[in-house]
Amino acid sequence: MSLARIVLGRRLANREGEERKIGAFEGVPAMGLDGLGSSSYGPEAALAILAVSGAAGLAALGPVMAAIVVLLLVLYLSYRQTIAAYPTNGGAYTVARENLGTGASLLAAAALMIDYVLNVAVGISAGVGALTSALPSLHAHTLPLCLGILVLLTIINLRGTLDAGRVFALPTYLFLSSFAVLLGMGLVGVLESGSPEPVIAPPPLRPATEPLGWWLVLHAFASGCTAMTGVEAVGNGMGAFRDPPVKYGRRTLLAICASLGLLLIGIAILATAYGIGAMDQTREGYQSVLSQLAAAVTGHNWLYYTAIGSLLCVLALSADTSFTAFPRLCRSIAEDGFLPRAFAVSGRRLVFSVGILYLAAVAGLLLVLFGGITEKLIPLFAIGAFLTFTLSQLGMVVHWLSRGRADGERRAAARMPLVINAAGAATTGLALVIILAAKFTEGAWITIVAVPVTIGALMLVRRYYDRIEAQQAPTGPLRLTAPNPPVVIVATAGRSRLSDEALRFALDLSPDVVAVHLTALEGEHNEAKAAALRDTWRSDVEEPAEAAGLRPPRLVVLPAAYRRAEGPLLKLAEEIRSKTSGRRIAILLPELIKRHWYQHLLHTHRARQLRARLVARGDPDLVVVTIPWSVEVSEPSGKLQ
Amino acid sequence: MSLARIVLGRRLANREGEERKIGAFEGVPAMGLDGLGSSSYGPEAALAILAVSGAAGLAALGPVMAAIVVLLLVLYLSYRQTIAAYPTNGGAYTVARENLGTGASLLAAAALMIDYVLNVAVGISAGVGALTSALPSLHAHTLPLCLGILVLLTIINLRGTLDAGRVFALPTYLFLSSFAVLLGMGLVGVLESGSPEPVIAPPPLRPATEPLGWWLVLHAFASGCTAMTGVEAVGNGMGAFRDPPVKYGRRTLLAICASLGLLLIGIAILATAYGIGAMDQTREGYQSVLSQLAAAVTGHNWLYYTAIGSLLCVLALSADTSFTAFPRLCRSIAEDGFLPRAFAVSGRRLVFSVGILYLAAVAGLLLVLFGGITEKLIPLFAIGAFLTFTLSQLGMVVHWLSRGRADGERRAAARMPLVINAAGAATTGLALVIILAAKFTEGAWITIVAVPVTIGALMLVRRYYDRIEAQQAPTGPLRLTAPNPPVVIVATAGRSRLSDEALRFALDLSPDVVAVHLTALEGEHNEAKAAALRDTWRSDVEEPAEAAGLRPPRLVVLPAAYRRAEGPLLKLAEEIRSKTSGRRIAILLPELIKRHWYQHLLHTHRARQLRARLVARGDPDLVVVTIPWSVEVSEPSGKLQ
Repeated sequence: MSLARIVLGRRLANREGEERKIGAFEGVPAMGLDGLGSSSYGPEAALAILAVSGAAGLAALGPVMAAIVVLLLVLYLSYRQTIAAYPTNGGAYTVARENLGTGASLLAAAALMIDYVLNVAVGISAGVGALTSALPSLHAHTLPLCLGILVLLTIINLRGTLDAGRVFALPTYLFLSSFAVLLGMGLVGVLESGSPEPVIAPPPLRPATEPLGWWLVLHAFASGCTAMTGVEAVGNGMGAFRDPPVKYGRRTLLAICASLGLLLIGIAILATAYGIGAMDQTREGYQSVLSQLAAAVTGHNWLYYTAIGSLLCVLALSADTSFTAFPRLCRSIAEDGFLPRAFAVSGRRLVFSVGILYLAAVAGLLLVLFGGITEKLIPLFAIGAFLTFTLSQLGMVVHWLSRGRADGERRAAARMPLVINAAGAATTGLALVIILAAKFTEGAWITIVAVPVTIGALMLVRRYYDRIEAQQAPTGPLRLTAPNPPVVIVATAGRSRLSDEALRFALDLSPDVVAVHLTALEGEHNEAKAAALRDTWRSDVEEPAEAAGLRPPRLVVLPAAYRRAEGPLLKLAEEIRSKTSGRRIAILLPELIKRHWYQHLLHTHRARQLRARLVARGDPDLVVVTIPWSVEVSEPSGKLQ
Repeated sequence: MSLARIVLGRRLANREGEERKIGAFEGVPAMGLDGLGSSSYGPEAALAILAVSGAAGLAALGPVMAAIVVLLLVLYLSYRQTIAAYPTNGGAYTVARENLGTGASLLAAAALMIDYVLNVAVGISAGVGALTSALPSLHAHTLPLCLGILVLLTIINLRGTLDAGRVFALPTYLFLSSFAVLLGMGLVGVLESGSPEPVIAPPPLRPATEPLGWWLVLHAFASGCTAMTGVEAVGNGMGAFRDPPVKYGRRTLLAICASLGLLLIGIAILATAYGIGAMDQTREGYQSVLSQLAAAVTGHNWLYYTAIGSLLCVLALSADTSFTAFPRLCRSIAEDGFLPRAFAVSGRRLVFSVGILYLAAVAGLLLVLFGGITEKLIPLFAIGAFLTFTLSQLGMVVHWLSRGRADGERRAAARMPLVINAAGAATTGLALVIILAAKFTEGAWITIVAVPVTIGALMLVRRYYDRIEAQQAPTGPLRLTAPNPPVVIVATAGRSRLSDEALRFALDLSPDVVAVHLTALEGEHNEAKAAALRDTWRSDVEEPAEAAGLRPPRLVVLPAAYRRAEGPLLKLAEEIRSKTSGRRIAILLPELIKRHWYQHLLHTHRARQLRARLVARGDPDLVVVTIPWSVEVSEPSGKLQ
């Protein structure tokens, strides 16, 4: 069994495609890990901004998170509609292309592609960061851990989205259920007592250094919005769902958004109730907000460790969302000719392997360049997500408008969706402006540089394909003349059964056959061998040919002055062509095929190299014909006479 | 200009071979560095053994070195004769093959091959060891230094032996002239005063711990014999000399042996006169015998630094001898079929590049495995050298005996050479026995294991070639029947100018053409494209064919269930073959040829992969025809109509 078979599983047939599709159970792990994991860093990011205002800042968490949850609701409702309208691919790229034109679709494509790559690097390194802060002895192995997780994700996703969804179901549902219990316990406590007694008290809040102002609240909102990245993945991943995709896509979207919303609400209430703030990550003894919260609710018991352990897994695996959505996004882009064709080809396991490998390679490069610590890339993140949210909503607004225009009855049906998507476009657009303003100097400007560069690259790819297509487009019916067989040149190193086979085939193809024997290929002119060949040519080749009624093949002996065959062969081809007024030349190369690794060491690879060099000339009037013959070392009598 | 061109120089033509040959001036650096460099470690190795007997041991150095110099003289005289008798390759392998038979020649081949590889690893690491003991700050970089020198030697030798001889002439002749001055000054001092006053006194001898016995003296002799390795290189390198090779070979041999002999005599006399012993290499403050000697004669002045600096270069570059002799030895072995053919092919610069690269690879592997410190391999060394010395001399004895047998007059002329070679065989054989006995437990047994293994490998190679030859040998005149054109299958992805070209060529080759359009290669069945092709086939292809009086190509649409073309193509070929009673099939693949690196990213490499998989079947009845077409991106109008 081959290594690929063991690691990736057997090659799947096209007809197995439907069985490999997923439902909502696998959909939540396959597409939701990014969104669910962001429940841990969204509130923390907002609290980190608000921390400068002490208790007043903490009190503002509730309203900020409420705004975010409302935005999440709007997003849910609009993506629910988008999925129904575009059941094969409801991502921002398709929606923008259909409704806003190529420019907007490329903008969405670039923003999404960058976002998904960043999500892999940042997701893995954040997960490993959380792991190493829990187990400091692992800190020295940060980069190998990051790359290990990357390889694991890559292999599991190359096996197929179904496999990934099943493998990652355990940590996902363990995370969801343990936090459901934790937050439920905490909320019951809050309802019973108002301000409950923590089992383990969180560290005191940092003292206030700034008053709470509007700008601070907006900045906290912008930071908290990172909690929403990953919600659009379901739209891009629609191709993964089984029939009917709209049903399963909506279920998955609902499960992800509802879980995320409840997590955010619970965290906001409990953090306020217990007085939990964001600690300084660079200081000794740092604990994340969720770790403080879990400890306050239940102490350091098995529930705490289950919850925090499954959270670590979810964080480290949140990159999986990109592995589901990115290859399918790239497939759509590639089908429009803006990415290399290979991105649109289903691989061994019916997923788009090239996209998976490309994603892994670029993210791996980022991880290596940044040594596994990619915090600085986080600000770049939310921009791409909100840019695509806005484009997608805008596209849907246009979609409903144009539908509305069609006839009166449908106009009525399109009114409610139109309102929802317009509200979505407005709020996500506003959020985008706030995020851009708040995070511009933190590195968000990099996105503003990277997006146009990516768009430029996509357009260059398309221009290349357009040119090739223009060059290759057939012009009317096939033009044909009477058959004009080529002059066949047979390259031979003296007579052997293989070269006999080549001569026979050459005579089948054309009456004009020239056999070329090259001397001095090894560096020294071997006159004896050439002379022996010349002496026997008449009796061994020419006479049998005449007896069979064939024009006898001519023997030409040429020296290879530079120990390479292509020079003399091309010169001969040129001579023949000039004499035969441009007839096509077929160069026939017998090639011994190796069956075992050691045979590659024992043969010079001249035939292969010669073929490669001849073909590389790209001249359609110089055709290369390979006659293969596998070397059966153990059995001296070949199959041929 | 390509990188290969810059690093290795332009490709040389066969007719330039004579200009690339060397004389004695380049011969001494190209073949003598090993021999000359061993003047530094031969006496030191003997002194290291004798050190246990203190002053009595030092007094024995003279007789031991005298025996070695006598042996060197015998070797010189015998190799002088061997060269004349075998002017193209006077190495032990050829001599043994001609006179002692295949078994003995393989024994010599194995011993020499192992010796030359070891010489590269040991020579470089010893040179770097001497360098780092002079400049201890370099010690941490031992392995990179070793590999750097190896790469340098490899590149210079790939450029050709002439280049290597010229480049290494400077350190070689600087070393010879500076030591000539040094030893001359010292000997004048000894002649004037008997026991001269050292400028810098050598450290006192270690106290005697053992009495001087016969076994100790023999052991010292065996160790000192390492001074003679490298002397046989001229014989193996004969092919490098220009006409008349015997003259230049003898001059080179004389220069090397005379220089080495004088160096050994001078060192023995001066070490005794100044009371210089071998210091413990593992102790702090270690100085080599030659460094103590130079300091005693002249102090630490510019002459000292020139002599020791050039000695370091000679030691570090002593591996060059292997690079001259090993590839030429392997060429002889490969021509007899005991090594892969590639070893006998002249490379870009008319040297046997495969042998050079193989030598570098194996020596590099040894250096990496041993971390650049290969002292433990030294004992393995002398055995191979003396084994081949002995075999070569024995071969020459047989040579003269058989000549003598021929007729009376030649018998007289052969008497003197016979005596010399017989004396050589006896003494080197005796030395071999002593070395084996003295060094068996030090690691010499490894040679005794490695040699039979190597011989076994050589014999397996030969057996493989014999089988291939038996399989491939033509049996009588070419058997021919009336021409029977193949059925041509044209693989096409819809119509394009390239596939039109392929169809035209197919119709030139055979009246029976089948065009195959594969659907679902990307994973989804594209019925629209297939239907469009089917609809236009009649008007665009079949009608023009009929108009030209040709049988129209049949269109077959096949699904690629596993997204690979070879499955359906092979199935179709099998069907056709069963219907046409075994006619040959030619599969015609149009291939876009890429001119720029980015094109490789923009095209799937399906045609190439498909061809590779089809050819790999090794079935001569399934021929693969490639029609190349280079993609000219900049110029949309191709050359074809």
